[in-house]
Amino acid sequence: MEATAREVDTAVRAAHAARGALADRTVRSAFLRTAADRLQAARDQLVEAADAETALGPVRLTGELARTCYQLRAFADIVDEGAFLDVVVNHPDDTATPPVPDLRRYKVPLGVVAVYSASNFPFAFSVAGGDTASALAAGCPVVVKSHPDHPALSELVAKVLRTAAAEHGVPDGAVGLVHGFEAGIELIRHPLVAAAGFTGSVRGGRALFDAAAARPVPIPFHGELGSLNPVVVTEAAAAERAEAIGTGLAGSMTLGVGQFCVKPGLVLVPSGAAGDGLVKSLTDAVSDTDAGVLLDHRMRDNFLAGIAERTELPDVHSPVTPGAGGEHTVSAGFLTVDAGKLTGEGAHDLLLEECFGPVTVVARYGDDDEARAVLARLPGNLTATVHLSEAEAAGEGRGAEILAELTPLAGRVLVNGWPTGVAVAPAQHHGGPYPATTSTSTSVGGTAIERWLRPVAYQGAPAALLPAELRDDNPLGLPRRFNGRLER
Amino acid sequence: MEATAREVDTAVRAAHAARGALADRTVRSAFLRTAADRLQAARDQLVEAADAETALGPVRLTGELARTCYQLRAFADIVDEGAFLDVVVNHPDDTATPPVPDLRRYKVPLGVVAVYSASNFPFAFSVAGGDTASALAAGCPVVVKSHPDHPALSELVAKVLRTAAAEHGVPDGAVGLVHGFEAGIELIRHPLVAAAGFTGSVRGGRALFDAAAARPVPIPFHGELGSLNPVVVTEAAAAERAEAIGTGLAGSMTLGVGQFCVKPGLVLVPSGAAGDGLVKSLTDAVSDTDAGVLLDHRMRDNFLAGIAERTELPDVHSPVTPGAGGEHTVSAGFLTVDAGKLTGEGAHDLLLEECFGPVTVVARYGDDDEARAVLARLPGNLTATVHLSEAEAAGEGRGAEILAELTPLAGRVLVNGWPTGVAVAPAQHHGGPYPATTSTSTSVGGTAIERWLRPVAYQGAPAALLPAELRDDNPLGLPRRFNGRLER
Repeated sequence: MEATAREVDTAVRAAHAARGALADRTVRSAFLRTAADRLQAARDQLVEAADAETALGPVRLTGELARTCYQLRAFADIVDEGAFLDVVVNHPDDTATPPVPDLRRYKVPLGVVAVYSASNFPFAFSVAGGDTASALAAGCPVVVKSHPDHPALSELVAKVLRTAAAEHGVPDGAVGLVHGFEAGIELIRHPLVAAAGFTGSVRGGRALFDAAAARPVPIPFHGELGSLNPVVVTEAAAAERAEAIGTGLAGSMTLGVGQFCVKPGLVLVPSGAAGDGLVKSLTDAVSDTDAGVLLDHRMRDNFLAGIAERTELPDVHSPVTPGAGGEHTVSAGFLTVDAGKLTGEGAHDLLLEECFGPVTVVARYGDDDEARAVLARLPGNLTATVHLSEAEAAGEGRGAEILAELTPLAGRVLVNGWPTGVAVAPAQHHGGPYPATTSTSTSVGGTAIERWLRPVAYQGAPAALLPAELRDDNPLGLPRRFNGRLER
Repeated sequence: MEATAREVDTAVRAAHAARGALADRTVRSAFLRTAADRLQAARDQLVEAADAETALGPVRLTGELARTCYQLRAFADIVDEGAFLDVVVNHPDDTATPPVPDLRRYKVPLGVVAVYSASNFPFAFSVAGGDTASALAAGCPVVVKSHPDHPALSELVAKVLRTAAAEHGVPDGAVGLVHGFEAGIELIRHPLVAAAGFTGSVRGGRALFDAAAARPVPIPFHGELGSLNPVVVTEAAAAERAEAIGTGLAGSMTLGVGQFCVKPGLVLVPSGAAGDGLVKSLTDAVSDTDAGVLLDHRMRDNFLAGIAERTELPDVHSPVTPGAGGEHTVSAGFLTVDAGKLTGEGAHDLLLEECFGPVTVVARYGDDDEARAVLARLPGNLTATVHLSEAEAAGEGRGAEILAELTPLAGRVLVNGWPTGVAVAPAQHHGGPYPATTSTSTSVGGTAIERWLRPVAYQGAPAALLPAELRDDNPLGLPRRFNGRLER
């Protein structure tokens, strides 16, 4: 089943040949909507196939498929609106230094996009996921490298997408699919691949990023690799609602058996009675959580090894020890440690690394400086969260200051919420300083389309030859910047 | 004078410490305007210093300084308008799948930007050039690595910028300056450097790009490396105005002694009488061009070696042979070759490589297919140009088709013009497929600011803690996307 180099080449060439069919925006938006319709219509079959390969359960998978369809339709709307084209028109201006000729800029698709599927989202970050949806929306054909945890589902989904494509005259090649580790390497090196999207581990993502950068012609590599997702609970917040925060944390860290990239992996909790109450509430809620199945045996082994390594560290405690559940399952738990052990000489750096699965680290801090010292040691994150008291949220105390302190750490900063559950919305940003992502882009939300485009400016092009998008009379009604003024 | 590793570290830390002073947009725009004023006030001294180091002449240098000041002011306007912040606000929406919480996104500065100066633009692409102007506009302090061709000017310009900074309470560290090759390497590797801008050679730029990608934490590297800037003259255009095109080409390829990144380096001219007339006109005009001084001896040596290598190729002619002028100067010239020699087995690939200096290659083509075959072999370019007849420009014949064929090749596509003279304008795009640039960004024009920003989304942040930019009541009057609707 693994694709040979020749098969990868064939897939990429077929995708490249399909560019023209995606050039028309009305075709793209119609195709995306039909794709959503067809996926929805095939729901029962798809959920069953996904569950057979991932054991994520029909409830979660049905929700994820709905999210995937919503996402395809959201990108269809974005394509129709056309703001992503970033049209800018400048008429000649002899008063500028140097003088400005007639210049008209918009964005064009980059070309074939390689999409690397994620293990933990067989729908939303795989064959029909955000990378594919945003690439097709931008006018870029895709060649998807399936994740080995769900190859059969990947074939099924690709087939549905191709059926939808055919309804709009878009050839099968617009949605390529290849399997196998080596095929993934071939893909990133292929001269006709113009950009790549990836969701997965730091190790795998970095290897592909390095390969993309080492090409004779380097290409953009938008990878989402890893994130610890720190949470800070203020003294006042703990005093006000320790129990609710503990329960909420338990729900977020165990959601999907802890297999979310935005799982809170480090929680700074004040020492003292209020913080103790939070830990107590967390203990109760986590103890009540059912054991769950991890996506594959390799992940289960990694999780158990990661837990063993961490619990062996001196001065690390585990009020609820995570570990093996049944033969295939794992049980949730968490570790506690003094925040002082995470800084300075001999610090437990391992606790500042992501551990995929249902575990989090609660670090107890004595004062703000100690909490800040831990935050200063963190690599980049997808999210950073603070839990504030009612008064702090209303502007008293250090609320705004903490928000400003968390901003350099992450691409999404939450107040009094939990990072799991990534909304598909124009204002979403799912990305962050490395290793959260390898670029400043997002892989969720409307602006994800920007990754697959490049600007081109036409100078002195006569009206008769201009693409409709750039004409003075704006026949397509696009939002644009026209002689400096924003028009919507 | 070369900075040690410790001096680079000191400069970067000082820049990092200056971030806070640049956080306020009103401070930034005022600083940029004052910088323009102070540079303008020091014009005579600066032009003299620049001419002493570069021999580019007072006329060109005065113009370049005016352009530099215009650019600083243009970025001040962009900072004031605030559209670059890309504000997006989403109120909660329970009808979405999954539901959307309160989400508000805008862009924040990346941090310290390393700027690598160009040899050929001592003002516009050096210490106070486009990279510095756009980085400061974005709120990023800079550490500039000077070009060895104009170190004294670099110090002078940095001093003027720091004087302007001081007037607005911005510390000196916001405009760092280091000299030396090794310092440039230290700079790209420094952990507190968050992004880099570069204008220069493919070899130098690629080495820095590779270093940026190989860091433990890779950073964006926006480099403008090299470009051949192809020009296509149609049969009908040559028939209509061979002489004007030949003269125009001579002017563009010899402008600034051919030391512009957008110098037309390959011109596809039809075979036959009309094309012959164009070559005749080019011959006359180039023969009349005075010898000029190249920026330094290394460049002169490279130019002469490049010409020698090219003229030795079989079937390559030089109606006007470029070469050594006086002891320090070089004289302009051009080569001709049949387009067929640029494709297929044993093709003269060297003629498809940029040669810095006053030379261009005229390739004579028999038919459209032959011209297309040459274009298909080109690496990425900053610009691609077509000269059309009046009828073609009005929509008859292949005009629109040629425009579409040139678009994949370049970031700026010109009709009936010459690529030299890069306007500073919102619609400008100065970038293109590799090796023109190492990213999809531009280094000239308003959107150059996008390179130094990253998005961050706030989820569930109470109104009392929100940055003013993200508040519902929009106290700063920013253009934004509010609940899906574009507000301008």
